[in-house]
Amino acid sequence: MIETPYLLFLGDAPDPLAAKVAQGIRDWRPDNAVGQFRMEGCKADMKLPDMTLAEAKAAGAKTLVIGVANRGGIISQAWKKVLIEALEEGFDLASGLHNLLRDEPDLKAVAEATGRTLHDVRVPSVKYPIANGEKRTGKRCLAIGTDCSVGKMYTALCMDREMKARGLKSSFRATGQTGILITGEGVPLDAVIADFMAGSIEWLTPDNDADHWDMIEGQGSLFHVSYSGVTLALVHGGQPDALVLCHEPTRPHMRGLPGYKLPSLEDVMEVGLRLAKVGNPDCVVVGVSVNTQHMGDEESLAYCAEVEKRMGLPCVDPYRHGAGKLVDALIAV
Amino acid sequence: MIETPYLLFLGDAPDPLAAKVAQGIRDWRPDNAVGQFRMEGCKADMKLPDMTLAEAKAAGAKTLVIGVANRGGIISQAWKKVLIEALEEGFDLASGLHNLLRDEPDLKAVAEATGRTLHDVRVPSVKYPIANGEKRTGKRCLAIGTDCSVGKMYTALCMDREMKARGLKSSFRATGQTGILITGEGVPLDAVIADFMAGSIEWLTPDNDADHWDMIEGQGSLFHVSYSGVTLALVHGGQPDALVLCHEPTRPHMRGLPGYKLPSLEDVMEVGLRLAKVGNPDCVVVGVSVNTQHMGDEESLAYCAEVEKRMGLPCVDPYRHGAGKLVDALIAV
Repeated sequence: MIETPYLLFLGDAPDPLAAKVAQGIRDWRPDNAVGQFRMEGCKADMKLPDMTLAEAKAAGAKTLVIGVANRGGIISQAWKKVLIEALEEGFDLASGLHNLLRDEPDLKAVAEATGRTLHDVRVPSVKYPIANGEKRTGKRCLAIGTDCSVGKMYTALCMDREMKARGLKSSFRATGQTGILITGEGVPLDAVIADFMAGSIEWLTPDNDADHWDMIEGQGSLFHVSYSGVTLALVHGGQPDALVLCHEPTRPHMRGLPGYKLPSLEDVMEVGLRLAKVGNPDCVVVGVSVNTQHMGDEESLAYCAEVEKRMGLPCVDPYRHGAGKLVDALIAV
Repeated sequence: MIETPYLLFLGDAPDPLAAKVAQGIRDWRPDNAVGQFRMEGCKADMKLPDMTLAEAKAAGAKTLVIGVANRGGIISQAWKKVLIEALEEGFDLASGLHNLLRDEPDLKAVAEATGRTLHDVRVPSVKYPIANGEKRTGKRCLAIGTDCSVGKMYTALCMDREMKARGLKSSFRATGQTGILITGEGVPLDAVIADFMAGSIEWLTPDNDADHWDMIEGQGSLFHVSYSGVTLALVHGGQPDALVLCHEPTRPHMRGLPGYKLPSLEDVMEVGLRLAKVGNPDCVVVGVSVNTQHMGDEESLAYCAEVEKRMGLPCVDPYRHGAGKLVDALIAV
């Protein structure tokens, strides 16, 4: 668990897209960020107060989160001076980069000397159990997709926010690096050892109040040949009561697989539900979440209306239209 | 790759079952074993010549394989003297135990001093790629099961033996520790990092002659909530042209999951084939392999005849009745 609140390190981000992680924290957990730290030439701006390390410390920040990715995911030498100073001033560091903080001898030495923690959320820090499949109390909703990167994390976050706005019990459960940095905890599922994947998701979504919902971030797709095993571990380890189908309609082929067409929403529903019922016979599909970022307003609404009619399920772009319809369907389960 | 031939170390095996790995090598790759090494009190016997280390060395043995498991999978102190002497006499060591050879400081020191290799087949020694899903040349057959431990490895080994007996091109592809020790190579799939599972199977079953078949050892089951993700990585990474369904009819519930009933062979066929067709639209189910070890002769034959009639697919216990029918169906693909 990463201590909050954060100071968001934007470094020398060459463009706003490079600061995707910081943007995610800004969008979804603004209370977790007291300010931003920008270096000369930084082209990203979270519209948070610019702070020095000392100012952030005074404002209560506990952890400096690397909210920016360089090309190649490396820890730039230009950043090192700030990171070392942050450790010395009492901040922990958190990063989702491929290049691990702990693999940098200077950062490691300073962290040890100062007693601070380096959080590399790309690798698991927990010894997960093997899944036992036992029925857990509380309710769980899992986002499953036609492809990778179609909006499963945003769907779960939108639904979690809507649940909380209604005063209902809900927890977003992160299963990827960005989600972990947004919330401060979770399972970096793509880095878990095969035998423990489903068990890590059981661990992430334990017994809870009967009226509490876990909103589980999905990963990959049952139809993506590179990552489908990760997805099935979520379907079985997550023991979902409800599935939300996620889709991005303008994609020409599966992400990273030029020869592979996307499955239909019906394919994902049939196969996903059949496999989910192995772990929870009462599982149902409650709705469809469409990522319409590449569509105009009218086209977006028309597409969702068409899916709704065709499939007989509520269908929205929850980030654009709100997650109300999906949450209505969820709490009716 | 582990150098063959082997000397099989049976240690102080308390009963024949404890020497399951040695028995697998003896049954499936007898040419890989020049002899056996037994300590006082050993209750297992592979019916191979008992040899001292020096005799085995003279007979050409390159690797001492730990063919026995203690309770708890540990490396017994009683074994250490032999293992150290073996390293000193020029043998490599190979083990599938949970307790790794490399984690024993004395073995590690002697191996380094003598320039010998410690093969811990429980952990991967290769940096596998992420699967790219590209079509590979050659043919692949994958065993998929209703449950774990229903005979998927034996099925693939039986079919591989039958193919070779007919002069056809075939390779058994090991995906578990026992299979790796039997053949000297393979992927310990249950220990691979989630993101690289499917890629490890692509790596294991590369381009080959158009008339060559890989017989891929299956793992887990699409219907086993603890391990299903591993199975799906095989279905997609293996890109199978043919599936063989494996079943053990007397099992009361899924292995390790008392609340879970086994799926039907029809369930496994439908879901397995649908998912396999994502990676290879031409994939077909060629037959059913039943593990009838807990049945009498008549019952075994009657059960297979019933399945054959019900499903319209060849059905045998390949270890008991021979794999001829399955291979007939395979080469007709």
